[in-house]
Formats: sequence, structure tokens, C-alpha cells
Amino acid sequence: MTTAPAVLCAEKNAAIRQSFSRQGLMQTLGVEIVRLAPGEVVLRLPYSERAAQQQGGFHGGAIGALADVAGGYAAMTLAPEGDEVTTVEYKINFLAAFGDGELRACGRVVRAGKRIIVTTAEVVHRAADGAETPCAVMQQTIAPVRRRY
Amino acid sequence: MTTAPAVLCAEKNAAIRQSFSRQGLMQTLGVEIVRLAPGEVVLRLPYSERAAQQQGGFHGGAIGALADVAGGYAAMTLAPEGDEVTTVEYKINFLAAFGDGELRACGRVVRAGKRIIVTTAEVVHRAADGAETPCAVMQQTIAPVRRRY
Amino acid sequence: MTTAPAVLCAEKNAAIRQSFSRQGLMQTLGVEIVRLAPGEVVLRLPYSERAAQQQGGFHGGAIGALADVAGGYAAMTLAPEGDEVTTVEYKINFLAAFGDGELRACGRVVRAGKRIIVTTAEVVHRAADGAETPCAVMQQTIAPVRRRY
Amino acid sequence: MTTAPAVLCAEKNAAIRQSFSRQGLMQTLGVEIVRLAPGEVVLRLPYSERAAQQQGGFHGGAIGALADVAGGYAAMTLAPEGDEVTTVEYKINFLAAFGDGELRACGRVVRAGKRIIVTTAEVVHRAADGAETPCAVMQQTIAPVRRRY
Repeated sequence: MTTAPAVLCAEKNAAIRQSFSRQGLMQTLGVEIVRLAPGEVVLRLPYSERAAQQQGGFHGGAIGALADVAGGYAAMTLAPEGDEVTTVEYKINFLAAFGDGELRACGRVVRAGKRIIVTTAEVVHRAADGAETPCAVMQQTIAPVRRRY
Repeated sequence: MTTAPAVLCAEKNAAIRQSFSRQGLMQTLGVEIVRLAPGEVVLRLPYSERAAQQQGGFHGGAIGALADVAGGYAAMTLAPEGDEVTTVEYKINFLAAFGDGELRACGRVVRAGKRIIVTTAEVVHRAADGAETPCAVMQQTIAPVRRRY
Repeated sequence: MTTAPAVLCAEKNAAIRQSFSRQGLMQTLGVEIVRLAPGEVVLRLPYSERAAQQQGGFHGGAIGALADVAGGYAAMTLAPEGDEVTTVEYKINFLAAFGDGELRACGRVVRAGKRIIVTTAEVVHRAADGAETPCAVMQQTIAPVRRRY
Repeated sequence: MTTAPAVLCAEKNAAIRQSFSRQGLMQTLGVEIVRLAPGEVVLRLPYSERAAQQQGGFHGGAIGALADVAGGYAAMTLAPEGDEVTTVEYKINFLAAFGDGELRACGRVVRAGKRIIVTTAEVVHRAADGAETPCAVMQQTIAPVRRRY
């Protein structure tokens, strides 16, 4: 629903990568940035025990965190220069469980307002052979906030 | 909204503790069980870099995971004997940010149906001096599933 | 989670009643104000065909509208003097279906910030004999906005 | 995320139209079916005072009801023959306010399970000149249930 230029400016790109590198939780889970574009961010989470639940699948909390960050940085690509973002709320539905491969979350901005940015994220499982299966969908409200670092 | 006996039977207690100990994400974040009662579960998450976001506060994804598990195990206390639970979806609102102390999530069952269990969770920050401040509220849909371990 | 004085000031009371009377949807459904207090609003919706779904029960959309308005006016009780409120988003879980009597929605403020007010609402069915049964729970994000009338 | 045949079978088509005609709330608001296809349903809601809030815009509760029904019937197109559907929960974000024209809600199935069907809906405003603007996005959990009429 958003039309945006395809390449993110260098300053935003650097600001988001710096911000991401400061997220202890993302480092702990081994999440990596796949793509940063205006209004769209893709992250990957390889399967590991650290991200697992009791039945051996990716933990819903880890999937939620992945989607939260994908949506949040998608919002940050369109937030005012120099701002950080904070999650007001998110809601996630789980579609299927997976215990291997990796998850890819694609966060997209649905509407970028001054005070509120609305995003969605789709999380897809990617198996070793490259086959993709839907895993979760998220809907989120983000607010731009002042950077404090 | 739920009336339930105050003490959890020994089998359920053991089953939930075993299930919890198998959750890699909870071990990684250092989450501990504070209380298991019929229809109500309290967990604690001490502050650490592993659970942090870029501004130094508890990560929304970690708070979401904590609330998800508190609600899920609250549901499991009322699920059929021998069943595990899976999260259909959850939605969380963040109320305030904290960068120290610990978070306590109290999950409660609002309605326990055969196919669907609805829960809520309140997440509260507890400072070093014991002062408590609301941090997040969650609403969740859980489904009982067969145990696979 | 909110501590607030028990009586709403006369100006707020009048402003909310005026606002409510302007809501065509609430008039159409026959919703009435039961209670206005600081941080808490109770509304009632008597059963009628206008509020029904295909199986004869209260329509989830009508229940959602009722909860939305209860939460929204609970927020308005704590919003800056002269402001209206708008719903950023809401999420509702349905607990049981009812095809008679009335529904009562109690909206409560969980956190009142300057830009964002978070509320919850509990919707309860009340039968002809006064018996109450939980019907739905809602969680909501509200923003104060300028009044345009 | 769903691939489905483009034409709905005659029985499903008739069952959904019958079900829809029984919804008092939809009749009251003046909602009409625009399109029924496997996994996808489009509804329209013309602006009227009955669907309005206090500032003159479409009421969030009416928008929620519209999206709820679009998602619900999208799910019903893929539910077992003879079943009705019930909403377990939905969550809706509002993107912009409109006080004229009509709203169109397009509900789509994201995953159709036996016990749980997950849907999303996009609500778009259509002005008199045909211009379309995003109005709301919804995410929803549906359960197939027995028809009781």
C-alpha cells in the first residue's frame, strides 16, 4: 500500500545498522539484516536452540521479536532523520511451526504518520532447499522517539 | 474472571516445569518461574544485555516472549492432562521502558474452552527497592496440542 | 492499574455525553451510558436484531464497537480538557455468544500518556435475571485529537 | 499468500449470501457483497449517519464490523461444506478518517486450518470520483462452527 523510492539513503542505512547492532536480543538470537529499503526491511533468524520452544520449534516469542524488529526498522526508514522508533504495540498470528532452516521476516510500512507509523510483517520459513512456507503475520503500531545514544 | 482452586496438582506442576526447562529461549534470556497456580502463572526476567534493545531498555520482543510464555503456561494449567499448548496469536501493548531491575509477567486465563483458551498477561517492572510499575499488557489465544516429546 | 479520583468533573461529563450523542452508530445500536468516572466508562447494549449476526447472537462487530467506545471514552475522561479521542487500533477476543439480554462493556485506562492512551475493556453479558457471564475482552490504543465540532 | 481457484462453487456462494442476509447488523449498516471468491471476499459500506462517529467520520466500530465480516466470509469460503464460522478475535489498525463516499473491505485467507483460519482484511476508502485511499488493516482468527439455523 506504500509507494516509496527503492534505495535507502546512506545516512538512514548507517543509522539503522548502528541501531540494530546495539540490540542485545538480536545479537543473542543471531538475527541478521537481509535488506533495508524505504518502507521495507527483511531480517533472517537461523534456527538454533536459543530461539526454540519446548517442542523443538522456533519459539513464538522469538518469532514475535523478529517480526517486531522488522516492522520497527521498516518504520524507521520513513521516520524523521535522527529519530529512533519505539513499539507502541504489536499483534502476531502464528501459521505453522518449524524446527530447522531459517525464518525471514519482511516488515512493511502501511502508513507513515508524524506521530504513528503502522506496519505489517510477514514471516516465512525457508528450508535448506530454499522452499518457503508462511510462518506468521504481524500488525504493529510504531512511534518515532528521540535517539538517546 | 476465573475461579479456580488455589493449588496446582503435582502432575501439572511437574509437566509445566519440565516443559519450561526445554524452552531454549527462556533459558537464554534467564527467565524463571515465580508461581504456578491453576489459571495463573508468574515469571520473572532479570535485566541483561541479552534482553535489551538499542536504547538500553528491555526489548519489546523479550517482553512479548515473557508475556507469551506466562499466558501460555497459565493456559496449560487448565488444559487437558498430558497436553501441551501452542500460541495461536498474541497482542501486546507497551506502557513504559525500563533498563534495570526485573520484569514480572503474570498470565491469567480469561476463558478455558476445549479448543481455545483465552488469556491476558500483565507485565510489571520491579526496581531494586521493590517498587513496581506497569510495563505491558497482553491478550492471547492459546490452543491445546498433543505433546511431542 | 490506574488510581484516579472517583468523580468526573462536570465539564468532562458534559463533553463526553455530548460527544456520545453525536455517534450515529451508537444511537442506531441503542447503546446507553451507564457510568462515567475518571479512567472508567460503562456502556450497555440491549439485544436487538440490529446488533445481531447470522446465528442470532450479538454480532462480533457490534461487540467490538461497544468495547471500542467504552475504551475510547474511558481514555477521554483522562485526555486534555477540550480534546476528543480517536482509536489508533483495538484487538478483541470473544469468549461466548449470547442472543438475549444485554451486554455491558467496562472500559478502563491502563496508561494515560500525552500522545497515547492504552485501555482495556471487559464485556459481560447480563441475563434477564441479572446473571453475568464474560463475553469479550479488548485491548486498545487511543490518541487524543482536536475536537472538530 | 493463498493460491485458490478463482470461482466459488454455487453451494458456498448461496450459503454465504444466505448467511449474510441474516446479519441484522450488516442490514442496518447497509453493507453489500461486492465479490465472493475462494479465500477472498469484498464488501462495501456506503457512508451514512448510522455508521458515523462524533466527528462525522465512519465509526471505527463500523469499520471493524465491516472488516470482521469480510474476513469471516473469506474464511467461510474455505471452511468445510455446511459449516458456519465464528470470530475468535480480530485486531484492527485505523489509517485515516473519511466522512463520505464508501468503504470497501477485502478479506483474504492467510491460512486455512481445520480448527483455525487466519485472515487479513484491507479497508479502502473510495471517493465519489473513484479515488481510493487506505483506511484500515485487520488481522483475524476464525473458527469453523456448526450452522444452527
